[in-house]
Amino acid sequence: MLSFMLQPAVTFVEAFIMRNSMQLIDVPVPHLTTAHSGPLHHVEEIILTQIAIIEAWFRQQWLKTPAPITSSVDLRHAGFKLAPVDTNLFPAGFNNLNPDFMPLCIQAAQSALGGSFPGCLKILLLPESHTSNQFYLQSVCVLRDIFVNAGFIVRIGSLDPTITTPTELNAGRGERVLIEPLQRVGTRVELANFKPCLLLLNNDLSTGIPDILQNLEQRIRPTTKLGWASRLKSSHFQFFKEVVEEFSTLISIDPWLINPLFSAVDGIDFMAQTGIEALAAEADRLLAMIREKYAAYGIQETPFLAIKADNGTYGMSVMMVQEGAQLLQLNRKQRTRMATSKGSQKVDRVLIQEGVHSFETMPDGAVAEPVVYMIGQFVVGGFYRVHQGRGKNENLNAPGMHFEPLAFAKACNMPCGDLRVVDSSNRFYAYGVIARLAALAAAREIAAIGGE
Amino acid sequence: MLSFMLQPAVTFVEAFIMRNSMQLIDVPVPHLTTAHSGPLHHVEEIILTQIAIIEAWFRQQWLKTPAPITSSVDLRHAGFKLAPVDTNLFPAGFNNLNPDFMPLCIQAAQSALGGSFPGCLKILLLPESHTSNQFYLQSVCVLRDIFVNAGFIVRIGSLDPTITTPTELNAGRGERVLIEPLQRVGTRVELANFKPCLLLLNNDLSTGIPDILQNLEQRIRPTTKLGWASRLKSSHFQFFKEVVEEFSTLISIDPWLINPLFSAVDGIDFMAQTGIEALAAEADRLLAMIREKYAAYGIQETPFLAIKADNGTYGMSVMMVQEGAQLLQLNRKQRTRMATSKGSQKVDRVLIQEGVHSFETMPDGAVAEPVVYMIGQFVVGGFYRVHQGRGKNENLNAPGMHFEPLAFAKACNMPCGDLRVVDSSNRFYAYGVIARLAALAAAREIAAIGGE
Repeated sequence: MLSFMLQPAVTFVEAFIMRNSMQLIDVPVPHLTTAHSGPLHHVEEIILTQIAIIEAWFRQQWLKTPAPITSSVDLRHAGFKLAPVDTNLFPAGFNNLNPDFMPLCIQAAQSALGGSFPGCLKILLLPESHTSNQFYLQSVCVLRDIFVNAGFIVRIGSLDPTITTPTELNAGRGERVLIEPLQRVGTRVELANFKPCLLLLNNDLSTGIPDILQNLEQRIRPTTKLGWASRLKSSHFQFFKEVVEEFSTLISIDPWLINPLFSAVDGIDFMAQTGIEALAAEADRLLAMIREKYAAYGIQETPFLAIKADNGTYGMSVMMVQEGAQLLQLNRKQRTRMATSKGSQKVDRVLIQEGVHSFETMPDGAVAEPVVYMIGQFVVGGFYRVHQGRGKNENLNAPGMHFEPLAFAKACNMPCGDLRVVDSSNRFYAYGVIARLAALAAAREIAAIGGE
Repeated sequence: MLSFMLQPAVTFVEAFIMRNSMQLIDVPVPHLTTAHSGPLHHVEEIILTQIAIIEAWFRQQWLKTPAPITSSVDLRHAGFKLAPVDTNLFPAGFNNLNPDFMPLCIQAAQSALGGSFPGCLKILLLPESHTSNQFYLQSVCVLRDIFVNAGFIVRIGSLDPTITTPTELNAGRGERVLIEPLQRVGTRVELANFKPCLLLLNNDLSTGIPDILQNLEQRIRPTTKLGWASRLKSSHFQFFKEVVEEFSTLISIDPWLINPLFSAVDGIDFMAQTGIEALAAEADRLLAMIREKYAAYGIQETPFLAIKADNGTYGMSVMMVQEGAQLLQLNRKQRTRMATSKGSQKVDRVLIQEGVHSFETMPDGAVAEPVVYMIGQFVVGGFYRVHQGRGKNENLNAPGMHFEPLAFAKACNMPCGDLRVVDSSNRFYAYGVIARLAALAAAREIAAIGGE
């Protein structure tokens, strides 16, 4: 880390050469275990040969629809296909990022807020209320530190009405975090002796927008209108589909290679078993479309679908099926699990999403799924959810699911034309491009809903 | 670098704790050897306790006057005083930065150009013409790579009229760089089959703005109007003085602690020995002011002045004096050295600048002087010029001067409130603040001259 020798320091150029050589001996990223069928690395190759075109296009897009202040995107990489399966505007997990990229996070925060909130000094961070989860509290600490280092005064307020006095919570690892009760003062929310100009929302509002955040004069980012009580996954993926159509024309790629097919079905009641037949029929229709694509590309894998609550998060109410008939045969336990989403919200609208195989594995065979983090329009890092003992077509973000985070070793903005597509810099760059397409879809979602 | 073990990855929080402990055993930055007189660390303490105020102020300043696209600032740190002595808008030395901060450079370039040049795809980089200097060519390669990775197509054009065909130069370390001849086409400059939308100037135009760059419709950054043929150091430091006055009021600090006193004297002819008496008298006046300040703060060092060509660079025509009388006793060799600046420009206007002692030294006593680099408004790194066998009050950027670059080990945007002011993160942050004040002065210089 510190290198205060007096011999010539390692220069940019030397370091590039060193890294270049290292690539030949190190395992750069989790290994792709996909069978040698289908267009392996096709997506990455197309992306890596058109970087300037892609970046110029993104520059114009962000001017039209500014990126959400925070976002994270769960990706799946099947070798022949690289696509997002979930886009979160209120991400946890900042504690899992590579600490070497803290300066990048800080600069991104400065860039994202510098122009839009010039006079702003004080930020009120509004986290989730589950205060006993130390991993989450660590993420809150990191998010706070990013904005503190970016040059803001940041305090943390709780949306939990049971927090009525300033409360110091143990975030583990020797770190403590002060959570303070919110006060509504006219059309503003405040803490004691703290009048914030901006509210930074890190709570997905699964149970709706609380009264205390209604009709505020203060600006709140990301918008409360995209909390999970009102946001639909299918709406996000509709915007994503449109983004991908434009992008695919730009770089001449089959949009399917980066876009999971999807459909939404309404009027579902898993407990009363209403609407399940329509759901199964729609699932079969989607599976047939995927099978056609697999056949066209010579892909020998078995297609599958993810069935998710259309408005929900946290991997609750999620299941995988390989044919529609499976939905007609759910047992009581499975139906109960599907019927309720986070915050005890009843599920009556379901997203059917094409499953994308996770073919990235660690040397010991553990499946590794990338999650990419953005602050504003900038990709600031990511990590792999590394999970032992789970199948490549299972949902790794399921309730009670255990994973080890493995931080990306390099930044996502340093593609290197000289290196192979499996080089980590290039792999991470490709992740960053697909993740930014999802963030752009979220930006359009926000604009469409009249958010900011 | 790569850490693909399956045990839990090191998290942000853990890494902070680890670094915190490391500070106690490592030498964080070059040691301050200043005598224990004067307000040691006073400047840094004041800066580190008002980070949010300072950053909010910078945010507003950059909206009023955007930062130059590139800049570097030479700083001097005397313990009681931390101040810039030179601000370069066309910096070399990008190759001396810490390669770990390449992602930060790329993001800063995206941020600096994203909003201002939305449709821009092609950049023409215009370097200096001294093509035999491999260190400079390495810097050009790094600058090119930053903007390539930021998502632009970058080619390099030569202002040297003797370059009439595409020429591949050896930048050393196995890297080759292609320099192409410029073509003037109407009100544009181009290369063969390359029509750039933006010209990135990395040539200080010491001999004036060449005809080929006159009356262009293309935008050129930084502006040609601040090439050294027309720019005056005294003008820069007049803007710096005004910036410092505002900033000092903001954070309640004596402006002298971050601002070198200066004066400019016109009508000098070192060879004909005209105007030298007026110069000596002005030098003595300035020295008296500095002595007064030293007395007020109990500083026991001997004041000195740097005498420089007002429009010049590269440490040519620079000398140090401790009293005005020294200027009356110059020998022929000294007068010849002072009489001509880079590009054989005659010196007839002289800047007298308060000398700031270099009290940062390496463990072996070598003097270390920081240079801070910025892309747009973002500090992207820096390095120390480490020089054995030179005095603390000599100019380390003199002709033929040999230094070893020592890259900053950490970024300049991560102050850590828990640590001592001599912690490297905090020291680098303070450097970054003072350097940005100089960049802000340059931004105002650009605005005043009608540049962009």
